[in-house]
Order: sequence, then C-alpha cells, then structure tokens
Amino acid sequence: MDYNQLVSQIKQKRSFLCIGLDTDVTKIPSFLLKEEDPVFEFNKRIIDATIQYTVAYKPNIAFYEAHGVSGWKSLEKTINYINLIHPETFIIADAKRGDIGNTSRMYARAFFETLNCDAITIAPYMGSDSVLPFLDFKNRWVVLLALTSNESASDFQLSKVENDEFLFESVLEKSKQWGNKENMMYVVGATQSDYMRKVRAIVPENFLLIPGVGAQGGSLQEVAENGMNSSCGLLVNSSRAIIYADSSSDFGKVAGIKAHEMQTEMAELLSVKGII
Amino acid sequence: MDYNQLVSQIKQKRSFLCIGLDTDVTKIPSFLLKEEDPVFEFNKRIIDATIQYTVAYKPNIAFYEAHGVSGWKSLEKTINYINLIHPETFIIADAKRGDIGNTSRMYARAFFETLNCDAITIAPYMGSDSVLPFLDFKNRWVVLLALTSNESASDFQLSKVENDEFLFESVLEKSKQWGNKENMMYVVGATQSDYMRKVRAIVPENFLLIPGVGAQGGSLQEVAENGMNSSCGLLVNSSRAIIYADSSSDFGKVAGIKAHEMQTEMAELLSVKGII
Repeated sequence: MDYNQLVSQIKQKRSFLCIGLDTDVTKIPSFLLKEEDPVFEFNKRIIDATIQYTVAYKPNIAFYEAHGVSGWKSLEKTINYINLIHPETFIIADAKRGDIGNTSRMYARAFFETLNCDAITIAPYMGSDSVLPFLDFKNRWVVLLALTSNESASDFQLSKVENDEFLFESVLEKSKQWGNKENMMYVVGATQSDYMRKVRAIVPENFLLIPGVGAQGGSLQEVAENGMNSSCGLLVNSSRAIIYADSSSDFGKVAGIKAHEMQTEMAELLSVKGII
Repeated sequence: MDYNQLVSQIKQKRSFLCIGLDTDVTKIPSFLLKEEDPVFEFNKRIIDATIQYTVAYKPNIAFYEAHGVSGWKSLEKTINYINLIHPETFIIADAKRGDIGNTSRMYARAFFETLNCDAITIAPYMGSDSVLPFLDFKNRWVVLLALTSNESASDFQLSKVENDEFLFESVLEKSKQWGNKENMMYVVGATQSDYMRKVRAIVPENFLLIPGVGAQGGSLQEVAENGMNSSCGLLVNSSRAIIYADSSSDFGKVAGIKAHEMQTEMAELLSVKGII
C-alpha cells in the first residue's frame, strides 16, 4: 500500500486505529481451545468484528513464533484472511528485526513476500545496512523504532549523543537519509508525549505508529494534539484493551464495541483537524 | 548448557569455532534441490562433516523465516538433529530479537522451549525490559549486540554518549547489571579489533561471539590476542567460508576440511594461552 492509499483509507474509515493481534492462547476464551487452530479462530472473529473501524492490524510475531511451525501457520492464515476480506487493510508485522544487509534482505522476503505484510517494525541499532534492504520493496514500509513506550526505553534511547541530542533524535535524523514519508514510519511511545514535539520537529511528514494507548497508558487526545499532521500521520495501536476486552462467547462483539468507541473518538479528532 | 560445560567442550574439542548456518537455497549445491527438504539435507551434511571441529552452530533465523512455515520446519529439524547426535553442542539462534517484556518472554519461549536453543542474539535498543525475560531461563543465554561487524555499526554504536563513552560501551556497562558471565555473551565484530580491548576492559570474563572472521574479514590471531581470556571466552563464527566452500557433491567433505583448518589454528591459540 502506498502513502496516498493509506491516507485515503483513514479518511474513508474515519479512523487511524491499528489493532494489535498479540494473540496468546492462555488469554483467549477457553471455548476456542477445542478448535483446530484456536489462534486463527480468535483472530478471525476479532477481525470480522473490528475491520470496519480499523485501518491496520499489527500481528505481534513473537506470539506466533512461540508455537513454532503451528504458530507460523496461524500467522499466515491470519494475514491471508485480512488480505482476502479487505485488501486495503494495512498490515504491520511487529517483528523488531534488523541485521546485516544479506540477512535483512531475507527478513524482508519473509515479511513482504512470503507473508505479504505491508510493513515491518525494525530496530535501528545496527544502522543503515540493517534498514536499507527493506526499503528496496516498492509500496512496503519500514516502521523504525525511535522512542518506544516501555520503561527501559530510557536506558539508551534517551542517552545524550552528539549535538546535545537524544539517541532517538539521532536515529530520526540519520534515517531521513534512508527513506521518506512514502516508505518509513516511526514507533513513538504514546506515554512519551513530552517528546512527541521533538519527534515532529525532525519528521513532520512521516507517519508515526503509536503503541501504548490503552493498557499501556497514554491519551488519544494528547497524542493527536502533539502528533497529528495535515494528512493525519498517525496510526494509534491498541491491543489488549480491544482483543481481550471480554472473555465470554461475546468477545468479538465486545471487541467491535471497543474498536467503535476508539474510531468515534478518532473521527472527532480528524474532524477538528479538518482532515475529514 | 552452563558456563563450565561450554568451557569443557572447548577444551575437549580444542576449538572455539561456531558455524553459521545461513542456509540459502539459491547457494546450496543444485543436486540437493530434488530432496524433500533441501535446506535440512544441506545442514545435515554440513553438521555431520563439521561437528567434531565445532563447539557451536548458529542458524541465522532470517534464512528460514524467508520460507515461512516450511522454513520453520527446516529450522526445527536442524536443531533437533544437532541435539540428537551431539547434545553437548551449543546452539545459538541468530535472531536479533528484543521487544517489551511480555513480548520478549514469548520470543524466549519460541527459541528456548519450542526450538530448544541454548542462546539467542538480542538487540539492546529497547533496554533492560527487552533483555531480562530471556535471563529467567536457567542455563540459557543472551548474546547481546554490542559492536557489530557491519559497516554501518558506526551509525549509532560508535556515537559518543555520557562520560565520553561510545554507545556500545554504555550497552556493555548497563548490561552488567542484568546478567553475568553465566548467562550473557556479547557480539563483537572481528573487523573492529581496535575496539576489542575496550570491550575486554568492561567485560573481561564474559564470552564474546565474534562474527566476521573469514568472508567478512578479520584475523583469528588478532581476535585471540585481544579477546581471549583464561577460559577462552570466545566463540568465533564462520559461515560462508565453511558452508559454501564447495558447491559440488563433495561440499560436506570440503566444509569439514575448512572447519578442521580453523580448529587446528584455534587449538594452537588455545595451547599458546595454556588453556589446553
């Protein structure tokens, strides 16, 4: 999916929601465990109930890899299902990959070709070699970790480097030489709204993927105030607050209600900004 | 595997070699392509020919994930095969993972439980949260990226942070609070021998995993001079120079010869140091 198509989806669905598919067999309703592929069945019902309210899904690859081969089968089925029922949906492999060039090229094939995702999250520690191979794929995206929402983000991301910058600012600066708003987004933790303005000063036009609204804390209003640009430029993720909102046989319906609530709030924010 | 067992294997095999299984179907001998699982068949023959000379194997996970479900099957079979024929072999999942706590816990399960690897490579960008869950597994190891061997390692790893330290030195310093020589190793690029002394000044006792000897350049002699400690403390990786040394039906035999050459050189270095 390209930049204009993504913006168009946001306007059409009046939403910049991304739903995290962190599907954990120990947390899904127990009646699903009798199914042949409980993880896929859970995802399918969540997707059916939420797809009208969300522009993106973000499967968290760890939760699938934990089950080895069968986990990869559930992951493939989930992505194929989304691409089948609504191919305009943006799919982010939350994989946090990044390695030397020939290895990153293999990861790019895994997630862009074999799995047919639109985007993949990448850790920047190894520098440009580890990011550039992903940018060779047309209409596919890198979502680069800049400032994450976890507590120990401060261990290194908030280290002061040259020019009195934080390391995450240096990551943003350098990465502007690698990609552009058409193929590069950034992970910026919603719990770090104080820093959002610093991020926007460096990358005003790129999309930001914001984790940490909902279960991890952080306010949608505040994120929009500091992070939204004239094309929206935000994808706000919610995982647990939607997919685990209910554990009864109605879990799909309740997930749909929660997603609808977020979409309604997002529509209001998009409207105030004059985007829709 | 624990620290003493690893040191004991090094002494017994007179080797600190790690063989990288970066198995690429486009590079393996073409006669293997008629096999049901060419990647596994290739790995099996490489393992059979080299296991007496190496203490560790390091499958590069990207090369398996590029094939999706069938790639994971090849990976599982490869690891099971090593654990079957020589359970004292140290297996490193070269995965470069690292995410928030609950996600890192899932990756730990994937690689330590589902796949039964001894160790996994981890990127430090997200800080302690992303590393600690892996250290909860007894006799399993984190191999933390410190200073990698790729050219763009300098993008961030050589940034100067507080106290006039490089970022990679700060990673080493902080990580000493998370683990110890019994559960934490570090990736240090062999092409960066100038920096090896800086690494050893901070982590004199930990094992270092050294990529970049062979195809990526870097001399074994120099690595040993600057990096070896009284228990060896080194695992030196070679991938392409061994596994792709020959592309005929004799590829296994030639890989064995190349591994034997490296093992012979390593035995000499261990002997000079008085370790064997």
